Amino acid sequence: MNMANAAANLIERHLGEYPEGTAANAGISNYGIQHEFADPSGAKMKAVVWEGKNTVKVVETAKPRIIENHDAIVKVTGTTICGSDLHLYHGAVIEMQKGDILGHEYMGIVEVVGSSVKNIKPGDRVVASFQISCGTCRFCVQKLSSQCERTNNSSVANAMYGHRTAGVLGYSHFAGGYAGAQAEYVRAPFADVNLLVLPDNVTDERALFLSDVIPTSYNCVQDTGIYEGDTVGIWGMGPIGLFAAKWAFVKGAKRVIAIDSVAWRLEYAKSKIPQIETIDFSKVKSVPEEINKIAPGGLDVALECAAGEYPKSILHKIETAIGLETDSSDTLNEMILSVRPYGRVGITGLYTGYTNHLNIGAIMQTGIRLIGNGQAPVLKYWEDILNNYIIPGKIDPNIMISHRIPLEEMEDLYAKFDKRDPKDGLMKVFVATKFSNPPGEGSPQLSSLKD
Amino acid sequence: MNMANAAANLIERHLGEYPEGTAANAGISNYGIQHEFADPSGAKMKAVVWEGKNTVKVVETAKPRIIENHDAIVKVTGTTICGSDLHLYHGAVIEMQKGDILGHEYMGIVEVVGSSVKNIKPGDRVVASFQISCGTCRFCVQKLSSQCERTNNSSVANAMYGHRTAGVLGYSHFAGGYAGAQAEYVRAPFADVNLLVLPDNVTDERALFLSDVIPTSYNCVQDTGIYEGDTVGIWGMGPIGLFAAKWAFVKGAKRVIAIDSVAWRLEYAKSKIPQIETIDFSKVKSVPEEINKIAPGGLDVALECAAGEYPKSILHKIETAIGLETDSSDTLNEMILSVRPYGRVGITGLYTGYTNHLNIGAIMQTGIRLIGNGQAPVLKYWEDILNNYIIPGKIDPNIMISHRIPLEEMEDLYAKFDKRDPKDGLMKVFVATKFSNPPGEGSPQLSSLKD
Repeated sequence: MNMANAAANLIERHLGEYPEGTAANAGISNYGIQHEFADPSGAKMKAVVWEGKNTVKVVETAKPRIIENHDAIVKVTGTTICGSDLHLYHGAVIEMQKGDILGHEYMGIVEVVGSSVKNIKPGDRVVASFQISCGTCRFCVQKLSSQCERTNNSSVANAMYGHRTAGVLGYSHFAGGYAGAQAEYVRAPFADVNLLVLPDNVTDERALFLSDVIPTSYNCVQDTGIYEGDTVGIWGMGPIGLFAAKWAFVKGAKRVIAIDSVAWRLEYAKSKIPQIETIDFSKVKSVPEEINKIAPGGLDVALECAAGEYPKSILHKIETAIGLETDSSDTLNEMILSVRPYGRVGITGLYTGYTNHLNIGAIMQTGIRLIGNGQAPVLKYWEDILNNYIIPGKIDPNIMISHRIPLEEMEDLYAKFDKRDPKDGLMKVFVATKFSNPPGEGSPQLSSLKD
Repeated sequence: MNMANAAANLIERHLGEYPEGTAANAGISNYGIQHEFADPSGAKMKAVVWEGKNTVKVVETAKPRIIENHDAIVKVTGTTICGSDLHLYHGAVIEMQKGDILGHEYMGIVEVVGSSVKNIKPGDRVVASFQISCGTCRFCVQKLSSQCERTNNSSVANAMYGHRTAGVLGYSHFAGGYAGAQAEYVRAPFADVNLLVLPDNVTDERALFLSDVIPTSYNCVQDTGIYEGDTVGIWGMGPIGLFAAKWAFVKGAKRVIAIDSVAWRLEYAKSKIPQIETIDFSKVKSVPEEINKIAPGGLDVALECAAGEYPKSILHKIETAIGLETDSSDTLNEMILSVRPYGRVGITGLYTGYTNHLNIGAIMQTGIRLIGNGQAPVLKYWEDILNNYIIPGKIDPNIMISHRIPLEEMEDLYAKFDKRDPKDGLMKVFVATKFSNPPGEGSPQLSSLKD
């Protein structure tokens, strides 16, 4: 646990939980530690827990029970790892506690529901939103689920951001401290709101990523705004960046330029979306100069799908290491210099705290719109995406999936996902449990990450 | 001259002028020093020149001549001082040179025009845009005059912002180094584009501020976006903030909360716009807390009409003083914490370089739209404002004007404007020359600032 994390936990204890933050009984992050919330049968389950900086373990812990009458318990048939899980892994997101169950994306079969659940019933095949929406606050009624005002009890987050944001499954006590989805069972609060029942004709692999990646990449493009004929730059060619490129073309972009330093990721993107152009930033002196060479006058839109955790310049490396800043502005400054005057810069990659040396002069003087996309409001988009894009085959989430592995190998998955070794070639991974169906059409077979 | 300024001038010399920056013969900032551009008759004029940090002088220098065939020479009948002139005065804007004629707002009578000028003729009563628009580049054809690509020859500005911004009259070599408008005569490049002929029924005092303040405050509101029923916070109750409040109500805002630490400015605002609410930030512990008390849930819109030159926290005071940052994030962070999720933060106050400790986490997580308003594209708005707001009396620029003084007293004006002493009560000042008309209806009489 790094110093910032320890300090944040201390401040949280000092401030006390945010008083209205208990609408979903937050802070229950491992039923084996918080026994009173465990299934009374004594049943066990496998789950991935955080043990400290760069350490996760697959452990056997208690299975959850219904705690509130709006809960459901879901048997997980598919989960995955997300780029942002690496921020937790690294301890870059504060308020992590030892034993927290990780993971925020899953699908499965409903096993049991609480007494007030009306639309979801045992046996339903569902996908879950990674956010926990209460369904009734001023943001949730507009389906802006990422800004739910009732499900995150972190006083620290509230103080840092001025306003509440939604609780997130398996995403540290900074986001409510809910037990995550890299497990065999998940407790789903406000099940009527946060679970979407799936039609039979959609394979598991095409449905799972409605939890996060697909709506997040959609929101990045939709919220930042892409218009017919735009030239778009995307920083970061992980799964979010890859799918943002897909959505950009769907929305009418004329050109999409992908920027990354991981050569195989750029190749992967080209193999799936041949029209894409690429810049390997490890090979050029200056990304903005390179962009102004190939797109004179500048980009219309720049999308941040990387995250502020990854400093490029020596100055930011030092500052982030010693805690003078939490997020690096390197990527943002490149984006600011790469867009034309009045251009749009959207931030979907994770930023949690403060950044230094941001080029505020260029923002003010050249009329740049720096748009925090927020965590994607999943509930606003997921039915539209399922019905109008996935079912008719306009997009296929399978283009992201490079591997299928068993839950038991998630310790290796975290380590290898973090390394980004070209020989592993890990893009998005479908993680199967003992409850999973066989691989669907167009999806990889089960394999092992063990060397 | 401070170190950053000296360094910038050095870098500019090293880089050389931006090659395409000569469309308007930039860098002619004092005809008495650059004799070859002086009126061949040897005629003199009074003008305000920058002599170094916190020093300006009213001097006698040479009158300009037509240099290019798109120029006009205008006899000044009204000019003024702007909050942003204080940034030049302080040396906070880089690339100032000793002897530069200051001032970017003026109106007057056209004396002579170059051979290619078609729409403007000698004797016309005109107001000038503070920006120099070429009229033909990709931004100017859309009337986005602030982003003109041909009139600013500063390589430093181009490198810092990634893209060109327009030349500005009397605003340092960072903005083209044009001789300014706090003078008896001004050379107006691209006169057909940058001068607006005035109808007789508009007084000088109602017309002068079309140069900058009125379009700038309008752009702040229009570009950031204010919708019917919005609750708006405005940081900085100088003339721009005051008029932004006026425009906010015109555009349908339900509530406008003005934030400043200068008590008489807040009183002044209340006396002119009685519906306005006020927060004196020198009297409260935390502005965001105070705002959340009086506007629970947060503002819809926050407008920055102050500028990044004024740090509030000790940390930023140290950092700006020793050059670790050029602009403070104090005000921006207050705004970010004061708006609701998905709220809009517009920056009209001047920011030129880099800022530290910006709350990027809140921007990303709560979906904030940080909108650089740019320098206002005057040409986009001025006819609309004149014809649809000033002439029908829907707004009256006179509400800003606290004083009328002669050009000869501008040295005192700079010093007193900088001090913001309540006994001076300087809001916007109409500066008269020997060519000025008598004061118009609703405007103050000539007075002296001499103690």
